[in-house]
Amino acid sequence: MAPERVIYLRLAYDGTRYAGWQIQPEEPTVQGVLMETLAVLEKAPVKVVGASRTDAGVHARGQGASFCTSSSIPPRGYLRGLNSLLPEDLAVREAREMPQGFHARFSARGKHYRYRIWNEERRDPLECRTAWHRLRALDLEAMARGAEHLVGRHDFESFRAASCDRENAVRELTRVEISADGPLVAVDVEGTAFLKHMVRILVGSLVEVGRGRRPPGWIAQALEQRNRASAGPTAPACGLCLERVFYDELA
Amino acid sequence: MAPERVIYLRLAYDGTRYAGWQIQPEEPTVQGVLMETLAVLEKAPVKVVGASRTDAGVHARGQGASFCTSSSIPPRGYLRGLNSLLPEDLAVREAREMPQGFHARFSARGKHYRYRIWNEERRDPLECRTAWHRLRALDLEAMARGAEHLVGRHDFESFRAASCDRENAVRELTRVEISADGPLVAVDVEGTAFLKHMVRILVGSLVEVGRGRRPPGWIAQALEQRNRASAGPTAPACGLCLERVFYDELA
Repeated sequence: MAPERVIYLRLAYDGTRYAGWQIQPEEPTVQGVLMETLAVLEKAPVKVVGASRTDAGVHARGQGASFCTSSSIPPRGYLRGLNSLLPEDLAVREAREMPQGFHARFSARGKHYRYRIWNEERRDPLECRTAWHRLRALDLEAMARGAEHLVGRHDFESFRAASCDRENAVRELTRVEISADGPLVAVDVEGTAFLKHMVRILVGSLVEVGRGRRPPGWIAQALEQRNRASAGPTAPACGLCLERVFYDELA
Repeated sequence: MAPERVIYLRLAYDGTRYAGWQIQPEEPTVQGVLMETLAVLEKAPVKVVGASRTDAGVHARGQGASFCTSSSIPPRGYLRGLNSLLPEDLAVREAREMPQGFHARFSARGKHYRYRIWNEERRDPLECRTAWHRLRALDLEAMARGAEHLVGRHDFESFRAASCDRENAVRELTRVEISADGPLVAVDVEGTAFLKHMVRILVGSLVEVGRGRRPPGWIAQALEQRNRASAGPTAPACGLCLERVFYDELA
């Protein structure tokens, strides 16, 4: 039998029709569709792990995934073979053989998420799948001042879903940046690790500041209070995209 | 009874699920859905005309439409009312009252179409709804040289669908431009009027040049031969978007 190899895949998907990353019995999920398709190439079931359990409706340009195999298919074979078999809304953007011990989730050094807001009174049907529509003009400067409070190492208890099952909510964000290109507002968030719904609650809270309903300093208070009710609402999934997972092995 | 007014609408749509602009009995069409929705606001049927009969699957950021009404709804009321009632993949981007005699189709002075090609080996699921995927690198310089032959007044007999019912195929193109932004190649086409499938056949032919299967001068030959079989294949609908219709009244 051939020795086992570890294969890394960088995935992109339009998450609209998926019930998220994680495999589920009844609904289409990214992990489920990927594993089914990989089983066709491998002629055997293969367990694939992902860096991030993206929520239902969340997109990705750079989800990290990995699996172990004893087949002799080269990385290029996975790239081509999977892309010819996967549905149009899911694709492999990169495939590589990695050192033994590599694991898409445990080897991840950090992640970059981008949240897109279409900030104009009129809807845009060509943006609505991948952006949250906010009709009124947001105060981007106030949002940027609010965002400064989030950068660094904090207890993000207020900024995670009630159903989040992690014991410890201390996480470090290295970047929370607001930018605009015409009506398109982007919130770029980078950090070492994230909690359930963290980026979406963070964006929902910054939007409260952008609407003028809260001052920028309210973000600092929400952090201090360590209580989900102190932060803003959870922004919709459609605006969120996992842009990149960082690995030392790929740096 | 109030005097009739003419209302102009600029429409945007994701054409993926529509059987084109023109109303049809069994399938969803942009004109059909718009007329149904407008009838709710007007409390009576209203005939809407469009500048371009976009094909099934073709998108728009700037389709022109107009209708006559004796209601007293202000343009802003149409903008808000229609956008709150229309499905997510269809929106009004602008509404205005126009001078008597204005007609979205007959008053059009020209149109701008953009065709998008995702030119990279790997598919991108977040681009596939609005771009044609071409795996091999296209020679954009050769395409630009081919495109030069198309600019001006020509008989576009070779560049229209066999089913096109216009008597005369002479049309004038003022711009056929190739540009690239990373893997995204855009073909911008402007002209006074267009034939059925004209932009898609023109792009399909330029891609034959870009692939190196034909020299740029072949485009001139295809024009001269005035025969559909002399030009290239029809590029898929998903890459095409009607960006703008030009009107003197809106200049």
